[in-house]
Formats: sequence, C-alpha cells, structure tokens
Amino acid sequence: MTLNNTIEIDIVKASSSKIASVDFENLTFGNIFTDHMLICDFKDGAWQKPIITPYEPFLIDPSAKVFHYGQAIFEGMKAYKDENDDVWLFRPDENFKRFNKSAKRMAMPEVPENIFMEGLKTVVDLDREWVKKGLGNTLYLRPFMIATGHGVIAQPSSEYRFMIILSPAKSYYSGEVKVIIAEHYSRAANGGIGAAKAAGNYSAQFYPTKLANEKGYQQIIWTDDATHTKLEEAGTMNVFIRINDTLYTAPTSERILDGVTRKSLIELAQRDGLNVEVRSVLVEELVNAAKDGSLKEIFGAGTAAVVSPIVAFAYQGTEYQLPKIENSFASQLKEDLTKIQYKLAEDTFGWTVKI
Amino acid sequence: MTLNNTIEIDIVKASSSKIASVDFENLTFGNIFTDHMLICDFKDGAWQKPIITPYEPFLIDPSAKVFHYGQAIFEGMKAYKDENDDVWLFRPDENFKRFNKSAKRMAMPEVPENIFMEGLKTVVDLDREWVKKGLGNTLYLRPFMIATGHGVIAQPSSEYRFMIILSPAKSYYSGEVKVIIAEHYSRAANGGIGAAKAAGNYSAQFYPTKLANEKGYQQIIWTDDATHTKLEEAGTMNVFIRINDTLYTAPTSERILDGVTRKSLIELAQRDGLNVEVRSVLVEELVNAAKDGSLKEIFGAGTAAVVSPIVAFAYQGTEYQLPKIENSFASQLKEDLTKIQYKLAEDTFGWTVKI
Ligand SMILES: Cc1ncc(COP(=O)(O)O)c(C=O)c1O
Ligand SMILES: Cc1ncc(COP(=O)(O)O)c(C=O)c1O
Repeated sequence: MTLNNTIEIDIVKASSSKIASVDFENLTFGNIFTDHMLICDFKDGAWQKPIITPYEPFLIDPSAKVFHYGQAIFEGMKAYKDENDDVWLFRPDENFKRFNKSAKRMAMPEVPENIFMEGLKTVVDLDREWVKKGLGNTLYLRPFMIATGHGVIAQPSSEYRFMIILSPAKSYYSGEVKVIIAEHYSRAANGGIGAAKAAGNYSAQFYPTKLANEKGYQQIIWTDDATHTKLEEAGTMNVFIRINDTLYTAPTSERILDGVTRKSLIELAQRDGLNVEVRSVLVEELVNAAKDGSLKEIFGAGTAAVVSPIVAFAYQGTEYQLPKIENSFASQLKEDLTKIQYKLAEDTFGWTVKI
Repeated sequence: MTLNNTIEIDIVKASSSKIASVDFENLTFGNIFTDHMLICDFKDGAWQKPIITPYEPFLIDPSAKVFHYGQAIFEGMKAYKDENDDVWLFRPDENFKRFNKSAKRMAMPEVPENIFMEGLKTVVDLDREWVKKGLGNTLYLRPFMIATGHGVIAQPSSEYRFMIILSPAKSYYSGEVKVIIAEHYSRAANGGIGAAKAAGNYSAQFYPTKLANEKGYQQIIWTDDATHTKLEEAGTMNVFIRINDTLYTAPTSERILDGVTRKSLIELAQRDGLNVEVRSVLVEELVNAAKDGSLKEIFGAGTAAVVSPIVAFAYQGTEYQLPKIENSFASQLKEDLTKIQYKLAEDTFGWTVKI
C-alpha cells in the first residue's frame, strides 16, 4: 500500500540539518526533534493549506484556548526502516480514526484524511534520514491539534492548529517496571474523556504517578474510579494479564483508550493460537492469582513502550512479584509485532504502509 | 488592607493604549485584553524575576508539554472600581490558595504568594483605567500557568510560565438560563482532578455542552459520574437549590471546585438568617420538589456569572419550569455580594482588598 498525493503542501526546507549533532545511540525519549514539522491551521470554518517548515517555536496568543481550557489532542505512532531503506508506518489508519474520535469528544474539528495522511507521509519522507535501521530504532511521530482561538470564555475555540512533529526514539521505558494498583486516584470518569487521547488525561496522572515513583514504582495501573475493583490501563499503555495460559485485557470503553498495540497483540495472540479473553480482571482476582501462583505475566502494550513486562505490583501496601518464566507471551507477542513492523516477517494482516 | 511590595518586577510599558478602541458598553466576555500582561517563568527549579510587558503573542516550542499533556491551570477573579475610583479585589487570598492547590494536583510548582499577589496588584494598577465604574462593570483577571518545558515524554515539565492577563467584562451569561441534568456524560472522576482549576476539566465539557445547546439548554448540571444520582456543579459555577425556604449546595469534594462565590454566598445567607445546608441534593429530590411545587429556585454561583438564576431544567427528556418568585434568595444574595464587591455596603467580612 502506498499513499498518493491529493493535496498541495507548501514546503520551506531547513537551511541545514541538525542530524549530525544527534547521538542516535543514546536517545532519551521524546526530547529531540527532526528538521521539519507540519502545520495546518483551521480558521473561518475550514482547514487551510498545510505547510512544512523548519522545526521551530511559533507565536501564540496568551488567551489561546489550549492554555485555558485544554482543547488539545494527539496521536503517537512510529516509522520503521527496513533492511532495504524503505520506511514504513504501522496501521496509520487506526491512528487517524482515533485522532478524529478524540477531536469529536473534545469538540474540535475533524482533520481530513488527506491532510493527516499525506501530511504525515510528506514530512516523514523529508526527514527519512532520521529513521535509523535496526530493531528498536524508530522515528516517533506526534500528530497533535491545539485550540489557538483567542478568548477566556469557556467555549470551544473557532481556530485550531494541527501539527506533526517527529522525534527519533529507542524504546520508552528502561529497566524493570514495577506498578502500583490505583486505590484512590483515577485517570478517567464514566462519561468522561478517558477514551480520547486528550492532553488533560495525561497531566491528571502526573501527581499520583509522582507519589508512586517516590515509593519506587514507575507506573500505576488504573482501576475504575467508582469502585477501584476493576483493572483498566496504565498511563500510556493498555494492560495484559496472563493467568495460567489465558491472556486477559480489559474491554475498551469510555474510560479506556482503544490502543493500536493492544488490538494488534490480540490478533497476533489469536493467530498464534493463544487463549485471549477481552474482559475486565478484578483486582481481587489478580491478587489471588499472585498468591496461588497462577499469575504468570503482566505487561503493558503501547506504541511508545511496545511491550513492557511488569516485574511486580503493589496493592494495599503489599508487593507481589511476578515469576520469571520461559515462553513468555510478552516476548513472543513483542517479537511477532516488531517483526512485522520492521518487515522481518510477512505482514499477512496488511498493517504496514510504505512511505 | 493594601499590599506592600517585596519583589521587583520589570515593567515594559505599551507605547500606546488600545483603550480608546474598546466599546465598554458592548463587551462580550473574555475576548478583549488590556494593554499589559505579567509573565514569570519557572526554570532550573526556581521562579525567575516577573516582568510586565505589552499584551502580545509569545513564542513557544511545538513540543511544550502544555500542548501534549495538558499541564495548565488557571484562576478567575475580578477587580471592581468604587465611586472614589479606588480599585478592589475580592478575596484574592482564596484564589491564590486554590491556584496552588491546583498546581499541586497537576504536579506543577507552586507560585510564591508575593509573585501572585504583587504581580496581580501591579499589573491591575498599571491598567486601572480599564476598570470601569458602575455596578456590573469589572475587570476579569486571569492568572494562569502552563508547562513550557520541551519534549513529548508523558512526564511533568521542568519549565513553566505563570501569566496574568486582564479582560474588561460585563456579566457572563445573558438571557434566561436553562440547564440539563447530566445522565450520561461527566466532568470529573472520583480521585480525579475535578477540584482543580485545570484546563482539561473544561474542554471535557464542551462536547456534552454542545449537545445540550443543540437542545436549547445553555448549561449542564453535572452529577456524580458513578451513579448520576447526585447533583454536583455546572461548567463554571457551583449550584444552589432552594426547596421551600432551605438553600442547599453540594459539599466540595475531589470532584467539585471549591468556589469563592459559593463560600461567600453561604456566609452571606447565614448572616441574613437564611437556612443553608451544605449537602448533596439527589436528582430524584429535585424532580420531586419540582413536581410538588416545593422547588423554588436553582441558581449558579461563580466569579464570571456572579449569580445566575436558572429558569428550567430538563431530566430524562422532561422539562421542569422554575416558578417566578418574589423575595428570591438569588437576587438577595447577589445584591449582598455585589454591594460588598463595589464598596456600596460595609465589608464586615474583610473580603475586599484595595489595590
Ligand atoms: C492512555 C493510553 N492507553 C494506551 C495507549 C496505547 O495505545 P497505542 O497502542 O495505540 O499506542 C496509549 C498510547 O499510546 C495511551 O495514551
Ligand atoms: C468548575 C467550576 N465550578 C465553580 C466555579 C465557581 O468558582 P468561583 O466562585 O471561585 O469563581 C468555577 C469558576 O469560576 C468553576 O470553574
């Protein structure tokens, strides 16, 4: 599958590239950006012509609604380079659809498919040198939209800016990941915006996560806010739990993000003949399974972290260790997935899109 | 009470004032700003020297965390001019405390009291011509803080910008306000950020509010997200309900903003010998009271809207009208409050602060 251009994009190239100054072996996630970015403004009820410019700060009014009312959404995707120097996206249609689902929930205008897709393709193509070969090397792609309209009345903006910025990345978490099961704080309300990739969902988690960090835990597994009895997801990952030989993951809902990695892993597990059940696991079940030894694995799944095995969880002050196991589902599924992403295995699903 | 300066603020004055171009009789809320604004940056773990500059757009990086993770909080306050041309703030200490409570919940640094208070005083003083005399005329003050640190990793920023912008305002809502009682959507989770004035709380309400607007309702009264049985608050107002001669308002909680207007009205009602009870009113109670005629008034209370009487509410597809009454508590309390704010009645509470 390749993308054909249906729109015009004005391109102003950077006068020189920053790439030589980047140490690609020692990247920390998300703090270095490529030479270019895409900008497309929405005003007078219509999307304007997209432009690609050098990556640089831009001017914005202090009363822009993004600052006051948080109308801001984003996506997180990656580009991968194969052995032939071809650059690939993974299921970009899923990110595009989710972006517009988020836009709708946040009362923002939907971005037309050609602006999203061709914009993405064009800017990644321009900075394709930044996508490095080799498993684990990726270019992280961050499409986002912010409300740029002026005024401090609490109402949707009438002006928006859609942008795409690109950041070379290795994997997200390093080291062993231990989590706390949420007992008090929550990330999403029933009837809230948890299923949208809305900026406000993330800062809401920073303080509880800081408290967890202080106790030696990197992440929180959120539970339903009403009863704190059902396991939901982590900060930027959906969560899989393996009890005996069955893999469980919570159903997506208004509170849980419909992760692309999650849905891909479910399909891969099914293809591999693993037993997968999409249902909520109760905290109580998790604790009991940890106690009786039937709990085999917990892992997070998300674009940034890919598959992130969890080595221990804490609940009500007690820490439960996960066993070290052979034939880990996490490793198997991670390998399945990354082989497709890097074109090392046949993509029978049609998930990869060449740039 | 007056404020004494303990900090230095660099001031760059606007070369000319925009004030002559403003039609103060026909202001719409929050879209005109005065000549100056205050900026104070947090970096390297410390607040820098505040500056006041002409109101103008500023440069920000596309990867600033406010755009991606929504670390953004604000306050809403007003300045009032009395008959002697003195300018007054109303309980600014409450806004200052709430600002830092919001900062803490959003994992942002607290703003020192002298930067907040003296910054506010200095910038309002500089633009005091913009505060017009006469009941209903105010200068709306918007202190806010955004995460300016770079990088798309979902972690708290290490750099922030605190700003104060000022907008001349009449009252917020015009016309009759009808509300819908929330049955599905919610504004806040248990253990969430509802009690913080965090930007993300507001955009979360835009889509449900748009749906309400389409049905002819201006606002939503939110209910608890778990059961939708308890009345909580409106978009930017706390809610009071009068059944017979008792006035009810929900207790503040993790889900409900601790409004300055709300707490002032409670004190005024008590002073006036009215019966006030701080407890949750059930939706069922409200509907029953509407049916049996004991429901006398519903009104919103907040800085922008002051006191906003509600003429009807809808629940499960049925619209219930509020009766037209004499001796309305809403009118009485609004008069009590605004008289103090405009120095037309003695401020026995010590709420007003002269600039
Ligand atoms: C809250 C949340 N859950 C889950 C995920 C995983 O989604 P995906 O696999 O599409 O990256 C993400 C983001 O990336 C997220 O932000
Ligand atoms: C959610 C919410 N509730 C209530 C209020 C009322 O608070 P205050 O009276 O302090 O303005 C506000 C804001 O102004 C608000 O944003």
